[in-house]
Amino acid sequence: MLDFYFDFFSPYGYFGSTRIEALAARHGRQVRWHAFHMRSVMKDVLGLVQPLTALPLKGDYIRKDIRRVARWLDVPYAPGDAAAFANVAADRAFWLIHDVDAEAAKRFAVEVFRRHHALGDSPRDEQALMAIAVATRSDVVDLPTLLQGQACKDRLRQATEAAMAAGVWGAPTFVADGEVFWGVDRMPMLEHWLERGGW
Amino acid sequence: MLDFYFDFFSPYGYFGSTRIEALAARHGRQVRWHAFHMRSVMKDVLGLVQPLTALPLKGDYIRKDIRRVARWLDVPYAPGDAAAFANVAADRAFWLIHDVDAEAAKRFAVEVFRRHHALGDSPRDEQALMAIAVATRSDVVDLPTLLQGQACKDRLRQATEAAMAAGVWGAPTFVADGEVFWGVDRMPMLEHWLERGGW
Repeated sequence: MLDFYFDFFSPYGYFGSTRIEALAARHGRQVRWHAFHMRSVMKDVLGLVQPLTALPLKGDYIRKDIRRVARWLDVPYAPGDAAAFANVAADRAFWLIHDVDAEAAKRFAVEVFRRHHALGDSPRDEQALMAIAVATRSDVVDLPTLLQGQACKDRLRQATEAAMAAGVWGAPTFVADGEVFWGVDRMPMLEHWLERGGW
Repeated sequence: MLDFYFDFFSPYGYFGSTRIEALAARHGRQVRWHAFHMRSVMKDVLGLVQPLTALPLKGDYIRKDIRRVARWLDVPYAPGDAAAFANVAADRAFWLIHDVDAEAAKRFAVEVFRRHHALGDSPRDEQALMAIAVATRSDVVDLPTLLQGQACKDRLRQATEAAMAAGVWGAPTFVADGEVFWGVDRMPMLEHWLERGGW
Protein backbone atom coordinates (compact mmCIF):
# COMPACT_ATOMS: atom_id res chain seq x y z
CA MET A 1 0.00 0.00 0.00
CA LEU A 2 1.03 3.59 -0.65
CA ASP A 3 -0.69 6.83 0.36
CA PHE A 4 -1.02 9.89 -1.89
CA TYR A 5 -2.08 13.21 -0.31
CA PHE A 6 -3.21 16.08 -2.50
CA ASP A 7 -5.34 19.19 -2.76
CA PHE A 8 -6.94 19.86 -6.13
CA PHE A 9 -5.56 23.38 -6.41
CA SER A 10 -1.91 22.27 -6.45
CA PRO A 11 -0.36 21.84 -9.91
CA TYR A 12 2.41 19.72 -8.40
CA GLY A 13 -0.30 17.50 -6.90
CA TYR A 14 -1.86 17.22 -10.35
CA PHE A 15 1.52 16.23 -11.81
CA GLY A 16 1.91 13.62 -9.07
CA SER A 17 -1.59 12.27 -9.75
CA THR A 18 -0.63 11.48 -13.33
CA ARG A 19 2.31 9.32 -12.23
CA ILE A 20 1.62 7.74 -8.86
CA GLU A 21 -0.52 4.78 -9.95
CA ALA A 22 2.04 3.59 -12.50
CA LEU A 23 4.88 4.07 -10.02
CA ALA A 24 3.04 2.05 -7.35
CA ALA A 25 2.07 -0.68 -9.85
CA ARG A 26 5.72 -1.17 -10.78
CA HIS A 27 6.26 -2.24 -7.17
CA GLY A 28 3.09 -4.26 -6.72
CA ARG A 29 1.51 -1.58 -4.55
CA GLN A 30 -1.95 -0.09 -4.50
CA VAL A 31 -2.54 3.60 -3.85
CA ARG A 32 -4.92 5.19 -1.37
CA TRP A 33 -5.77 8.75 -2.46
CA HIS A 34 -6.41 11.43 0.20
CA ALA A 35 -7.70 14.93 -0.51
CA PHE A 36 -6.84 17.39 2.26
CA HIS A 37 -7.31 21.11 2.81
CA MET A 38 -3.83 22.35 2.16
CA ARG A 39 -4.44 26.05 2.80
CA SER A 40 -5.47 25.39 6.38
CA VAL A 41 -2.33 23.28 6.93
CA MET A 42 -0.17 26.00 5.41
CA LYS A 43 -1.75 28.54 7.72
CA ASP A 44 -1.69 26.43 10.90
CA VAL A 45 1.64 24.69 10.38
CA LEU A 46 3.70 27.02 8.26
CA GLY A 47 2.17 30.33 9.32
CA LEU A 48 1.54 31.22 5.66
CA VAL A 49 -1.57 33.32 5.17
CA GLN A 50 -1.07 33.85 1.45
CA PRO A 51 -0.37 31.35 -1.32
CA LEU A 52 3.29 30.56 -2.01
CA THR A 53 2.94 32.11 -5.45
CA ALA A 54 2.26 35.49 -3.79
CA LEU A 55 5.69 35.51 -2.12
CA PRO A 56 8.39 37.67 -3.65
CA LEU A 57 11.09 35.74 -5.56
CA LYS A 58 9.80 32.32 -4.48
CA GLY A 59 6.46 33.06 -6.15
CA ASP A 60 8.19 33.96 -9.43
CA TYR A 61 10.26 30.81 -9.17
CA ILE A 62 7.26 28.58 -8.54
CA ARG A 63 5.20 30.04 -11.38
CA LYS A 64 8.02 29.39 -13.82
CA ASP A 65 8.90 26.04 -12.28
CA ILE A 66 5.37 24.66 -12.62
CA ARG A 67 5.52 25.09 -16.39
CA ARG A 68 9.05 23.72 -16.55
CA VAL A 69 8.10 20.60 -14.55
CA ALA A 70 5.04 20.07 -16.76
CA ARG A 71 7.28 20.11 -19.84
CA TRP A 72 9.84 17.88 -18.13
CA LEU A 73 7.22 15.27 -17.21
CA ASP A 74 5.43 15.79 -20.53
CA VAL A 75 2.12 16.39 -18.76
CA PRO A 76 -0.41 18.75 -20.38
CA TYR A 77 -0.70 21.97 -18.41
CA ALA A 78 -3.10 24.81 -19.25
CA PRO A 79 -4.77 25.82 -16.00
CA GLY A 80 -8.10 27.49 -15.54
CA ASP A 81 -8.84 30.47 -13.32
CA ALA A 82 -7.78 29.49 -9.80
CA ALA A 83 -10.14 32.05 -8.24
CA ALA A 84 -13.13 30.50 -10.02
CA PHE A 85 -12.20 26.87 -9.26
CA ALA A 86 -14.47 25.27 -6.61
CA ASN A 87 -11.41 23.64 -5.15
CA VAL A 88 -12.55 23.07 -1.55
CA ALA A 89 -15.95 21.76 -2.71
CA ALA A 90 -14.02 19.35 -4.95
CA ASP A 91 -11.95 18.19 -1.94
CA ARG A 92 -15.21 17.57 -0.03
CA ALA A 93 -16.88 15.87 -3.01
CA PHE A 94 -13.89 13.55 -3.26
CA TRP A 95 -14.62 12.22 0.24
CA LEU A 96 -18.39 11.96 -0.35
CA ILE A 97 -17.66 9.76 -3.34
CA HIS A 98 -14.77 7.97 -1.66
CA ASP A 99 -16.84 6.81 1.28
CA VAL A 100 -19.16 5.01 -1.14
CA ASP A 101 -16.54 3.84 -3.67
CA ALA A 102 -12.82 4.64 -3.37
CA GLU A 103 -12.13 3.74 -7.00
CA ALA A 104 -14.88 6.07 -8.24
CA ALA A 105 -13.28 8.81 -6.11
CA LYS A 106 -9.98 8.29 -7.93
CA ARG A 107 -11.70 8.56 -11.31
CA PHE A 108 -13.41 11.74 -10.09
CA ALA A 109 -10.09 13.17 -8.85
CA VAL A 110 -8.28 12.43 -12.11
CA GLU A 111 -11.01 14.24 -14.03
CA VAL A 112 -11.15 17.26 -11.67
CA PHE A 113 -7.36 17.61 -11.92
CA ARG A 114 -7.53 17.32 -15.71
CA ARG A 115 -10.37 19.79 -16.08
CA HIS A 116 -8.72 22.51 -13.97
CA HIS A 117 -5.02 22.01 -14.72
CA ALA A 118 -4.95 20.57 -18.25
CA LEU A 119 -8.09 21.82 -19.96
CA GLY A 120 -8.44 25.23 -18.31
CA ASP A 121 -12.08 24.36 -17.74
CA SER A 122 -12.30 24.59 -13.95
CA PRO A 123 -15.36 23.15 -12.19
CA ARG A 124 -16.89 26.30 -10.75
CA ASP A 125 -19.71 25.01 -8.56
CA GLU A 126 -21.47 21.99 -7.11
CA GLN A 127 -23.36 21.37 -10.35
CA ALA A 128 -20.14 21.16 -12.32
CA LEU A 129 -18.72 18.72 -9.75
CA MET A 130 -21.90 16.66 -9.97
CA ALA A 131 -21.52 16.47 -13.75
CA ILE A 132 -17.98 15.15 -13.30
CA ALA A 133 -19.17 12.64 -10.70
CA VAL A 134 -21.80 11.36 -13.14
CA ALA A 135 -19.34 11.26 -16.04
CA THR A 136 -16.90 9.24 -13.92
CA ARG A 137 -19.63 6.78 -12.83
CA SER A 138 -19.96 7.69 -9.19
CA ASP A 139 -22.93 6.41 -7.19
CA VAL A 140 -23.38 9.55 -5.10
CA VAL A 141 -26.76 10.73 -6.28
CA ASP A 142 -27.14 14.26 -4.93
CA LEU A 143 -23.73 15.82 -4.60
CA PRO A 144 -24.98 19.47 -4.68
CA THR A 145 -27.25 18.94 -1.68
CA LEU A 146 -24.67 16.91 0.24
CA LEU A 147 -22.04 19.60 -0.39
CA GLN A 148 -24.25 22.10 1.44
CA GLY A 149 -24.30 19.98 4.60
CA GLN A 150 -22.04 20.05 7.61
CA ALA A 151 -21.06 16.37 7.35
CA CYS A 152 -18.87 16.80 4.28
CA LYS A 153 -17.11 19.78 5.87
CA ASP A 154 -16.37 17.70 8.95
CA ARG A 155 -15.19 14.86 6.73
CA LEU A 156 -12.60 17.05 4.98
CA ARG A 157 -11.49 18.51 8.30
CA GLN A 158 -11.08 15.00 9.67
CA ALA A 159 -9.12 13.93 6.56
CA THR A 160 -6.89 16.99 6.91
CA GLU A 161 -6.20 16.17 10.56
CA ALA A 162 -5.44 12.57 9.60
CA ALA A 163 -3.04 13.82 6.92
CA MET A 164 -1.21 15.98 9.45
CA ALA A 165 -1.11 13.07 11.90
CA ALA A 166 0.62 11.09 9.14
CA GLY A 167 3.26 13.84 8.84
CA VAL A 168 1.78 15.65 5.84
CA TRP A 169 2.18 19.44 5.57
CA GLY A 170 2.46 20.02 1.80
CA ALA A 171 1.14 18.66 -1.48
CA PRO A 172 1.72 16.29 -3.02
CA THR A 173 2.97 14.00 -0.28
CA PHE A 174 3.53 10.28 -0.63
CA VAL A 175 3.77 7.92 2.34
CA ALA A 176 5.16 4.40 2.02
CA ASP A 177 5.44 2.22 5.12
CA GLY A 178 5.46 5.35 7.31
CA GLU A 179 8.19 7.06 5.25
CA VAL A 180 7.08 10.52 4.08
CA PHE A 181 8.11 12.04 0.73
CA TRP A 182 7.08 15.60 -0.05
CA GLY A 183 6.99 16.94 -3.59
CA VAL A 184 6.68 15.61 -7.10
CA ASP A 185 10.46 15.97 -7.41
CA ARG A 186 10.85 13.30 -4.73
CA MET A 187 9.04 10.63 -6.74
CA PRO A 188 12.35 9.18 -8.01
CA MET A 189 13.52 8.94 -4.39
CA LEU A 190 10.22 7.30 -3.40
CA GLU A 191 10.74 4.78 -6.18
CA HIS A 192 14.28 4.01 -5.00
CA TRP A 193 12.90 3.54 -1.50
CA LEU A 194 10.33 1.02 -2.76
CA GLU A 195 12.98 -0.80 -4.82
CA ARG A 196 15.44 -1.11 -1.98
CA GLY A 197 13.07 -1.30 0.96
CA GLY A 198 14.65 1.82 2.40
CA TRP A 199 18.29 2.70 2.90
CA MET B 1 29.51 28.65 -16.57
CA LEU B 2 27.22 27.63 -13.74
CA ASP B 3 26.45 29.42 -10.46
CA PHE B 4 26.11 27.72 -7.09
CA TYR B 5 24.57 29.68 -4.20
CA PHE B 6 24.91 28.41 -0.63
CA ASP B 7 25.04 29.32 3.02
CA PHE B 8 27.35 27.23 5.19
CA PHE B 9 24.66 26.36 7.72
CA SER B 10 22.48 24.47 5.23
CA PRO B 11 23.02 20.70 5.11
CA TYR B 12 21.37 20.56 1.69
CA GLY B 13 23.89 23.19 0.54
CA TYR B 14 26.66 20.98 1.88
CA PHE B 15 25.26 18.01 -0.03
CA GLY B 16 25.11 20.12 -3.18
CA SER B 17 28.69 21.28 -2.67
CA THR B 18 29.92 17.67 -2.80
CA ARG B 19 28.33 17.10 -6.22
CA ILE B 20 28.20 20.32 -8.19
CA GLU B 21 31.77 20.42 -9.54
CA ALA B 22 31.53 16.89 -10.99
CA LEU B 23 28.10 17.62 -12.45
CA ALA B 24 29.36 20.80 -14.12
CA ALA B 25 32.52 19.10 -15.38
CA ARG B 26 30.42 16.44 -17.12
CA HIS B 27 29.02 19.25 -19.24
CA GLY B 28 32.24 21.20 -19.75
CA ARG B 29 31.14 23.93 -17.36
CA GLN B 30 32.95 25.75 -14.60
CA VAL B 31 31.26 26.68 -11.34
CA ARG B 32 31.18 30.04 -9.60
CA TRP B 33 30.50 29.61 -5.89
CA HIS B 34 28.49 32.26 -4.00
CA ALA B 35 28.00 32.37 -0.24
CA PHE B 36 24.92 34.37 0.79
CA HIS B 37 23.17 35.15 4.04
CA MET B 38 20.21 32.86 3.79
CA ARG B 39 18.53 33.79 7.07
CA SER B 40 18.11 37.40 5.97
CA VAL B 41 16.58 36.25 2.68
CA MET B 42 14.23 33.89 4.50
CA LYS B 43 13.15 36.71 6.75
CA ASP B 44 12.82 39.39 4.06
CA VAL B 45 11.41 37.23 1.27
CA LEU B 46 9.59 34.40 2.97
CA GLY B 47 8.64 36.15 6.19
CA LEU B 48 10.20 33.34 8.22
CA VAL B 49 11.70 34.52 11.49
CA GLN B 50 12.65 31.06 12.72
CA PRO B 51 14.58 28.27 11.03
CA LEU B 52 12.52 25.81 8.98
CA THR B 53 13.47 23.05 11.38
CA ALA B 54 11.57 24.89 14.13
CA LEU B 55 8.27 24.60 12.23
CA PRO B 56 5.79 21.96 13.36
CA LEU B 57 5.55 18.92 11.04
CA LYS B 58 7.79 20.44 8.37
CA GLY B 59 10.64 20.70 10.88
CA ASP B 60 10.29 17.01 11.79
CA TYR B 61 10.22 16.13 8.11
CA ILE B 62 13.33 18.15 7.31
CA ARG B 63 15.35 16.77 10.22
CA LYS B 64 14.60 13.24 9.11
CA ASP B 65 14.97 14.05 5.42
CA ILE B 66 18.46 15.51 5.83
CA ARG B 67 19.75 12.19 7.16
CA ARG B 68 17.86 10.25 4.50
CA VAL B 69 19.28 12.40 1.67
CA ALA B 70 22.80 12.02 3.12
CA ARG B 71 22.41 8.23 3.03
CA TRP B 72 20.88 8.38 -0.46
CA LEU B 73 23.76 10.44 -1.83
CA ASP B 74 26.27 8.49 0.27
CA VAL B 75 27.68 11.71 1.73
CA PRO B 76 29.09 11.63 5.28
CA TYR B 77 26.85 13.54 7.66
CA ALA B 78 27.57 14.06 11.35
CA PRO B 79 26.94 17.73 12.05
CA GLY B 80 28.41 19.85 14.81
CA ASP B 81 26.51 22.17 17.11
CA ALA B 82 24.68 24.67 14.86
CA ALA B 83 24.52 27.26 17.66
CA ALA B 84 28.31 27.21 18.08
CA PHE B 85 29.09 27.33 14.34
CA ALA B 86 30.47 30.72 13.21
CA ASN B 87 28.37 30.41 10.10
CA VAL B 88 27.98 34.08 9.15
CA ALA B 89 31.67 34.77 9.76
CA ALA B 90 32.41 31.82 7.45
CA ASP B 91 30.15 33.34 4.77
CA ARG B 92 32.09 36.62 5.11
CA ALA B 93 35.46 34.88 5.16
CA PHE B 94 34.50 33.11 1.94
CA TRP B 95 34.24 36.46 0.16
CA LEU B 96 37.43 37.86 1.69
CA ILE B 97 39.28 34.86 0.30
CA HIS B 98 37.31 34.82 -2.94
CA ASP B 99 38.16 38.39 -3.84
CA VAL B 100 41.84 37.43 -3.77
CA ASP B 101 41.56 33.92 -5.22
CA ALA B 102 38.22 32.31 -6.19
CA GLU B 103 39.71 28.80 -6.29
CA ALA B 104 41.14 29.17 -2.77
CA ALA B 105 37.65 30.24 -1.64
CA LYS B 106 36.22 26.99 -3.01
CA ARG B 107 38.79 24.95 -1.13
CA PHE B 108 37.97 26.93 2.02
CA ALA B 109 34.23 26.35 1.50
CA VAL B 110 34.65 22.61 0.97
CA GLU B 111 36.59 22.36 4.21
CA VAL B 112 34.18 24.52 6.24
CA PHE B 113 31.26 22.40 4.99
CA ARG B 114 33.16 19.21 5.83
CA ARG B 115 34.19 20.37 9.28
CA HIS B 116 30.69 21.41 10.35
CA HIS B 117 28.48 18.89 8.54
CA ALA B 118 30.67 15.79 8.21
CA LEU B 119 33.14 15.92 11.08
CA GLY B 120 30.97 17.58 13.74
CA ASP B 121 33.91 19.90 14.40
CA SER B 122 32.33 23.28 13.67
CA PRO B 123 34.60 26.31 13.26
CA ARG B 124 33.54 28.39 16.26
CA ASP B 125 35.36 31.67 15.75
CA GLU B 126 37.59 33.77 13.52
CA GLN B 127 40.71 31.91 14.66
CA ALA B 128 39.23 28.58 13.62
CA LEU B 129 38.30 30.03 10.22
CA MET B 130 41.84 31.42 9.85
CA ALA B 131 43.24 27.95 10.54
CA ILE B 132 41.07 26.53 7.78
CA ALA B 133 42.11 29.33 5.41
CA VAL B 134 45.77 28.52 6.08
CA ALA B 135 45.22 24.77 5.72
CA THR B 136 43.50 25.33 2.37
CA ARG B 137 46.30 27.61 1.11
CA SER B 138 44.55 30.94 1.06
CA ASP B 139 46.56 34.14 0.67
CA VAL B 140 44.43 36.24 3.03
CA VAL B 141 46.86 36.93 5.82
CA ASP B 142 44.81 38.36 8.65
CA LEU B 143 41.33 36.95 8.46
CA PRO B 144 40.46 37.57 12.16
CA THR B 145 41.13 41.30 11.87
CA LEU B 146 39.39 41.64 8.51
CA LEU B 147 36.34 39.80 9.88
CA GLN B 148 35.96 42.55 12.50
CA GLY B 149 35.70 45.25 9.83
CA GLN B 150 32.67 46.71 8.12
CA ALA B 151 33.91 45.94 4.61
CA CYS B 152 33.38 42.19 4.86
CA LYS B 153 29.86 42.72 6.25
CA ASP B 154 29.05 44.97 3.32
CA ARG B 155 30.55 42.41 0.94
CA LEU B 156 28.25 39.62 2.22
CA ARG B 157 25.25 41.95 2.10
CA GLN B 158 26.13 42.86 -1.48
CA ALA B 159 26.53 39.18 -2.40
CA THR B 160 23.17 38.41 -0.80
CA GLU B 161 21.49 41.19 -2.78
CA ALA B 162 23.16 39.92 -5.96
CA ALA B 163 21.88 36.41 -5.20
CA MET B 164 18.33 37.71 -4.78
CA ALA B 165 18.67 39.71 -8.00
CA ALA B 166 19.57 36.42 -9.71
CA GLY B 167 16.31 34.90 -8.38
CA VAL B 168 17.80 33.08 -5.39
CA TRP B 169 15.71 32.71 -2.20
CA GLY B 170 16.81 29.33 -0.80
CA ALA B 171 19.90 27.14 -0.55
CA PRO B 172 21.32 25.47 -2.42
CA THR B 173 20.37 27.17 -5.66
CA PHE B 174 21.96 26.52 -9.02
CA VAL B 175 21.70 28.91 -11.96
CA ALA B 176 22.56 27.86 -15.50
CA ASP B 177 22.11 30.36 -18.33
CA GLY B 178 19.59 32.29 -16.23
CA GLU B 179 17.58 29.18 -15.36
CA VAL B 180 17.17 28.79 -11.60
CA PHE B 181 17.07 25.41 -9.82
CA TRP B 182 16.38 25.32 -6.09
CA GLY B 183 17.28 22.35 -3.95
CA VAL B 184 19.67 19.45 -4.02
CA ASP B 185 16.79 17.27 -5.27
CA ARG B 186 16.71 19.34 -8.45
CA MET B 187 20.27 18.46 -9.44
CA PRO B 188 19.06 15.66 -11.77
CA MET B 189 16.76 18.21 -13.45
CA LEU B 190 19.64 20.69 -13.71
CA GLU B 191 21.70 17.99 -15.37
CA HIS B 192 18.93 17.21 -17.87
CA TRP B 193 18.70 20.92 -18.61
CA LEU B 194 22.43 21.07 -19.35
CA GLU B 195 22.25 17.92 -21.50
CA ARG B 196 19.35 19.13 -23.59
CA GLY B 197 19.97 22.87 -23.53
CA GLY B 198 16.58 23.36 -21.89
CA TRP B 199 13.19 21.97 -22.83
